[in-house]
Amino acid sequence: MIEGRETSAKTRTIKYGMVGGGTGSFIGDVHRKAAAFDGRCEIVAGCFSRDYDATLVTGQKLGLDQGRIYKNFKEMASKEGARSDGIEFVTICTPNYAHYDIAKAFMEQGIHIVCDKPLATTIEQAEDLARTAKANDLLFMVTYSYSGYAILRHAREMVRRGDIGDIRVVIGEYPQGWLAENLEATGQKQASWRTNPELAGVSNCVGDIGSHVENTAAFITGLEIDSVCANLEIFGEDRTLDTNGEIMLKYKGGGSGMYWTSQIAIGNDNGLRVRVCGTKGTIDFVQERPNDLQVAFLGGPVQTLTRGNGYLYPEAQALSRIPSGHPEGYNEGFANLYTKFADALNKKQAGDTLTDDDLDFPNADDGVRGVNFIHRCVESSKNGSVWTKLD
Amino acid sequence: MIEGRETSAKTRTIKYGMVGGGTGSFIGDVHRKAAAFDGRCEIVAGCFSRDYDATLVTGQKLGLDQGRIYKNFKEMASKEGARSDGIEFVTICTPNYAHYDIAKAFMEQGIHIVCDKPLATTIEQAEDLARTAKANDLLFMVTYSYSGYAILRHAREMVRRGDIGDIRVVIGEYPQGWLAENLEATGQKQASWRTNPELAGVSNCVGDIGSHVENTAAFITGLEIDSVCANLEIFGEDRTLDTNGEIMLKYKGGGSGMYWTSQIAIGNDNGLRVRVCGTKGTIDFVQERPNDLQVAFLGGPVQTLTRGNGYLYPEAQALSRIPSGHPEGYNEGFANLYTKFADALNKKQAGDTLTDDDLDFPNADDGVRGVNFIHRCVESSKNGSVWTKLD
Amino acid sequence: MIEGRETSAKTRTIKYGMVGGGTGSFIGDVHRKAAAFDGRCEIVAGCFSRDYDATLVTGQKLGLDQGRIYKNFKEMASKEGARSDGIEFVTICTPNYAHYDIAKAFMEQGIHIVCDKPLATTIEQAEDLARTAKANDLLFMVTYSYSGYAILRHAREMVRRGDIGDIRVVIGEYPQGWLAENLEATGQKQASWRTNPELAGVSNCVGDIGSHVENTAAFITGLEIDSVCANLEIFGEDRTLDTNGEIMLKYKGGGSGMYWTSQIAIGNDNGLRVRVCGTKGTIDFVQERPNDLQVAFLGGPVQTLTRGNGYLYPEAQALSRIPSGHPEGYNEGFANLYTKFADALNKKQAGDTLTDDDLDFPNADDGVRGVNFIHRCVESSKNGSVWTKLD
Amino acid sequence: MIEGRETSAKTRTIKYGMVGGGTGSFIGDVHRKAAAFDGRCEIVAGCFSRDYDATLVTGQKLGLDQGRIYKNFKEMASKEGARSDGIEFVTICTPNYAHYDIAKAFMEQGIHIVCDKPLATTIEQAEDLARTAKANDLLFMVTYSYSGYAILRHAREMVRRGDIGDIRVVIGEYPQGWLAENLEATGQKQASWRTNPELAGVSNCVGDIGSHVENTAAFITGLEIDSVCANLEIFGEDRTLDTNGEIMLKYKGGGSGMYWTSQIAIGNDNGLRVRVCGTKGTIDFVQERPNDLQVAFLGGPVQTLTRGNGYLYPEAQALSRIPSGHPEGYNEGFANLYTKFADALNKKQAGDTLTDDDLDFPNADDGVRGVNFIHRCVESSKNGSVWTKLD
Repeated sequence: MIEGRETSAKTRTIKYGMVGGGTGSFIGDVHRKAAAFDGRCEIVAGCFSRDYDATLVTGQKLGLDQGRIYKNFKEMASKEGARSDGIEFVTICTPNYAHYDIAKAFMEQGIHIVCDKPLATTIEQAEDLARTAKANDLLFMVTYSYSGYAILRHAREMVRRGDIGDIRVVIGEYPQGWLAENLEATGQKQASWRTNPELAGVSNCVGDIGSHVENTAAFITGLEIDSVCANLEIFGEDRTLDTNGEIMLKYKGGGSGMYWTSQIAIGNDNGLRVRVCGTKGTIDFVQERPNDLQVAFLGGPVQTLTRGNGYLYPEAQALSRIPSGHPEGYNEGFANLYTKFADALNKKQAGDTLTDDDLDFPNADDGVRGVNFIHRCVESSKNGSVWTKLD
Repeated sequence: MIEGRETSAKTRTIKYGMVGGGTGSFIGDVHRKAAAFDGRCEIVAGCFSRDYDATLVTGQKLGLDQGRIYKNFKEMASKEGARSDGIEFVTICTPNYAHYDIAKAFMEQGIHIVCDKPLATTIEQAEDLARTAKANDLLFMVTYSYSGYAILRHAREMVRRGDIGDIRVVIGEYPQGWLAENLEATGQKQASWRTNPELAGVSNCVGDIGSHVENTAAFITGLEIDSVCANLEIFGEDRTLDTNGEIMLKYKGGGSGMYWTSQIAIGNDNGLRVRVCGTKGTIDFVQERPNDLQVAFLGGPVQTLTRGNGYLYPEAQALSRIPSGHPEGYNEGFANLYTKFADALNKKQAGDTLTDDDLDFPNADDGVRGVNFIHRCVESSKNGSVWTKLD
Repeated sequence: MIEGRETSAKTRTIKYGMVGGGTGSFIGDVHRKAAAFDGRCEIVAGCFSRDYDATLVTGQKLGLDQGRIYKNFKEMASKEGARSDGIEFVTICTPNYAHYDIAKAFMEQGIHIVCDKPLATTIEQAEDLARTAKANDLLFMVTYSYSGYAILRHAREMVRRGDIGDIRVVIGEYPQGWLAENLEATGQKQASWRTNPELAGVSNCVGDIGSHVENTAAFITGLEIDSVCANLEIFGEDRTLDTNGEIMLKYKGGGSGMYWTSQIAIGNDNGLRVRVCGTKGTIDFVQERPNDLQVAFLGGPVQTLTRGNGYLYPEAQALSRIPSGHPEGYNEGFANLYTKFADALNKKQAGDTLTDDDLDFPNADDGVRGVNFIHRCVESSKNGSVWTKLD
Repeated sequence: MIEGRETSAKTRTIKYGMVGGGTGSFIGDVHRKAAAFDGRCEIVAGCFSRDYDATLVTGQKLGLDQGRIYKNFKEMASKEGARSDGIEFVTICTPNYAHYDIAKAFMEQGIHIVCDKPLATTIEQAEDLARTAKANDLLFMVTYSYSGYAILRHAREMVRRGDIGDIRVVIGEYPQGWLAENLEATGQKQASWRTNPELAGVSNCVGDIGSHVENTAAFITGLEIDSVCANLEIFGEDRTLDTNGEIMLKYKGGGSGMYWTSQIAIGNDNGLRVRVCGTKGTIDFVQERPNDLQVAFLGGPVQTLTRGNGYLYPEAQALSRIPSGHPEGYNEGFANLYTKFADALNKKQAGDTLTDDDLDFPNADDGVRGVNFIHRCVESSKNGSVWTKLD
């Protein structure tokens, strides 16, 4: 029982609002729990659904003031923007297509943003959001949730410190099996919007989970993608968006990769995995084992590092709450992002200068890069799976 | 992405207090996060340390009213008991020796109890607590945290429904390695009190983690222990309490078992595992993989069931929040206990009759059973590792 | 302890010879053990090295008659062909470049062939060997060793019987780490010839191990590759052949795949793995766990099937020798191929008609397909990693 | 592809015979393959069954001379003993009860012995065999097969060299599931004799597999057992011998252990596992992963060592044939024992002095120790599971 770390603190509670995330959207509750996890944030306003009755149900369950349960996001943005005690940031967890308009509306009111990935459904919109955030000096976090795992910080530090040498190959995969059948035909909410191009955008599978592979690989390695060659496929009748994607990549400065992303790989729950092979060692991260990291060095055996142990770098320890062997997971990773964001916001509101470390959460630039990746994959595939530059 | 489940609700927030759980006690923060996880409970009072300055630091960090940050638990019990808006329950997460006095003091004020395990340092005290709770019609939860895991409910249901037939053998183990060296010599807080008989009671290893094996096995199987034969050993210089325990068991009505519990098994973080072998199948639960359950039936292959999938029993689904493959862990398990407790308390305060399902959290009787187990193991070992009845 | 199967029988011992496989060539000894494993074959002649002294050492160690230890393969082919008690088949386990000439020489003498993969260094040579074998009515086995694993027969039967439905995606990988450094600079024999284009042919990594991915995937699925898009890379200084290959594939009749093959993935010993995702289920084979097969069906949990259990198809049971849980491995898989080949040869020599089942070992056509795959990958990569047809 | 090792050599082939091991006895074929694996031994005589017709079938299948296929072991012993070219050793793989008489008969003829475990059905017989072997200067191997695994040699060396410090705790287990139902009622041969006290002796489960736990633990650790406390149970109707055993142990010189051995643990094929916890590190061996060894050192992560890698001690490398990642298993382990035995016999016949290393195979003393262990466990259990000395 190595000592754990106390993370709760309530000295200043940041008030925030949420758009999307109503009943049936598991991710809304994840956001709310993550925001509250370390006592940093309190939800006070919301527009949880396009259906006001549904919004009301959620808002009341959350104990919100009736007057801050809104019919639509525009009303919410303007009214919250006008209040002296208005929300300081808004969390956007609607289907992808709506992110842009919502984020714009709140940024116009000077409200900071937390937005689900993928950031937007076009590259132009994504870039506009990033520009707007900078122009208005607003914090903008894109919730690539897996980057919040403590053990991934160790992986990133290993790369940064040169532990595995120069990177040669990156192998990413993200198999799921839940869309092996046409679940959307049953009305299942998660399946319905993701397979609908009007709500999801140009891609389902690459957009939904391929973007996580891209982000996780970039997070660990710091590599920039030069070009992709993608073969996206639509498995399942009556579908118009991809449910499986195979992607080859070349990185700037050398090195190559392969990403596989699938929603039709029966037997897989949520199998994000990224392997990074360098000249001196290999890192192997498996999302479903978020407390573990497998590493190997030239000539040595595979080692299984586990969260919370003293041999990990301080950057990993800093995001670890409970002793090794006491599993942390998805919620803690998500909470790490929110706590980082909230601490940065607190510092900013106090007028302090934010350091790179303060801003060490996935931001709008990561979001832009992710949208670009998705669109280039779609473009490559449409053109016969040809190599396509990311610029 | 199977649909997740929304669990937050804030309709009535239960106010509670805490004794123990100050700085350096990771478990205090775990309790507070668990209580808040589904929006059920809010901490409003506390006495977090025997050192008032330390208590003040914690209380202020948590944003408590100065007047409800107490110098000692007696003052806290009487003052909170006297307030019309006093706490409805208190969480006790001090070292073991103090549980009894604290719980008694609060129960005298009609305040419900959440108490860490092991419940007390003598069987008599444990039994007195259970009696007192019943006599005063108070809810009493003992936080055997692992029983809150969703996947363990599936295991229990499999046994209850007869899926694995009659139980023949139970193999439990709980290896840790953190006390392989004398960490207490460095002043590490967790190590210091656990190896100190004045604070921990008659046992360190069996008391601290053997009790979890006992509870987890009982939770899954429903079996009652008839007798134990234990060999407790003190590894590590200058120690007076056990750091390793080997225990053979006989269950009432037939069947036998072995439990191994160790704090000196280098390479093990927190390796609680319980295997239950029946006439028709086997269940294998590994705490460090809390989303998984391995099962096998006569003549068939081993299956790995994972939390969140549709093939699990409703009792498991009810405690699952996020989709399969999105790891839940220690905090969610703990939160499940608190939410269950809070819902029962709400129902009780509303004057409703509580069903067995409402009361499906580990209670004082479980606590008594656990203390009895610890003491009988110590007794058996002292007498030359002879068979010792639990009655 | 499920009953094992007795496989030894010595009623007719087939005499054979070997070219290559001298000291330092671990694979020569593997062939000899495999041939002898079930008592079917006895080595009586050989030319184990281009260095006659080395050949002599090996031949004497094996107890061969001095007169049947040959200076070169041509002499061996002609003299053995001329003997009334000459060898019935020859095993060729030289570096790749020499396969063609040797096989031709022995076939001209009416001697049957067992040849290592890849079959030849050009497609034309490979096709010529296949044609020659057919024209001369000779048996020709190419030792794609992994296809001999008992558990892989179950995988193939699952596909054949439709258990996993129509195949959508095949993910193959074969990471090794042994060439992460320039081992050939140390004179290590295995590294030296494989990285030498004069001995290995157009490819090192794809030729040596990519060919196993191709064969294993084809063995399980029966799918034919329509086209490949490959990115082969040379990691390691002073090298001219690939040490890492990333390949996307399209199969005839639909479905796609990705194969990764690497010799620079530190921490990997011999990580061949093939996953096959169908409309009804998924199969997952990991070579380093050759007694296991992971399968999952729509809506169900992952199951770990293990060799030797009664729930496996007869085709798998037929190649299993010892009870479940008693690990079989590489040698047994290799032996299964030899025993199959020897039984076919016995039957042929007896004048019986050979059925498809009799001939169920990897043959020259498989060899041709493998060589074609290697060359198309090299061609694709040279042309900028463009899609390249296999025909 | 690390270089493998060539192990075949045929310079002098030792002629041997076999008693037992006829059709349906998988272990007979295992012995024959192991003896032949490295080209050391050739079977020339046998009495494979109490049924002469069955013996004839096996003998003819093996190509034995008709005159050396014997009706009973006595005839075989005397006739082979009388031949100038008689067998040099005999392998005994009958049910346990017959080992003693057979071994005695052959030793009287000066024939060396390879005998299955457990060595005999009484301690006295076992001791007599050990004495007789010494008195007659005969080699005597008891085939505790798992001690032949290459990776276990590394484990033993780690202990010998002090890598894990002083041993504190040994946890052994050997769960199987095949006797969860009364397989013997179906006439299954393996089940029938093992559950029959007339053929198996005083114990089924502890005798058959508990003895492997005892031997493997002793092999790795070198510890001697001081006393045991055992609870043997008979699960399954109409049975008179144990099918499950739970055993606590104390070692001479300190340290304790627990062994679990079961044939009714559904879902387990052949789950021998031994964990050894020392003051400086832990070793974890799992038989079903015979190429792997998990080790951990104080303060460090778990490492997975794999057979064939350069970081292993020479003692492990010496028993490894093929490169890392190419799985070796049960047959290779068995073969290692036979090759060691044959090399010792060759050296002995040549008149050379045998070193400890030459004699590094499980011998009659190991056999005696094993029988003693079994009997003390039975005695302990019969007396109410009390502590029982092994002397």
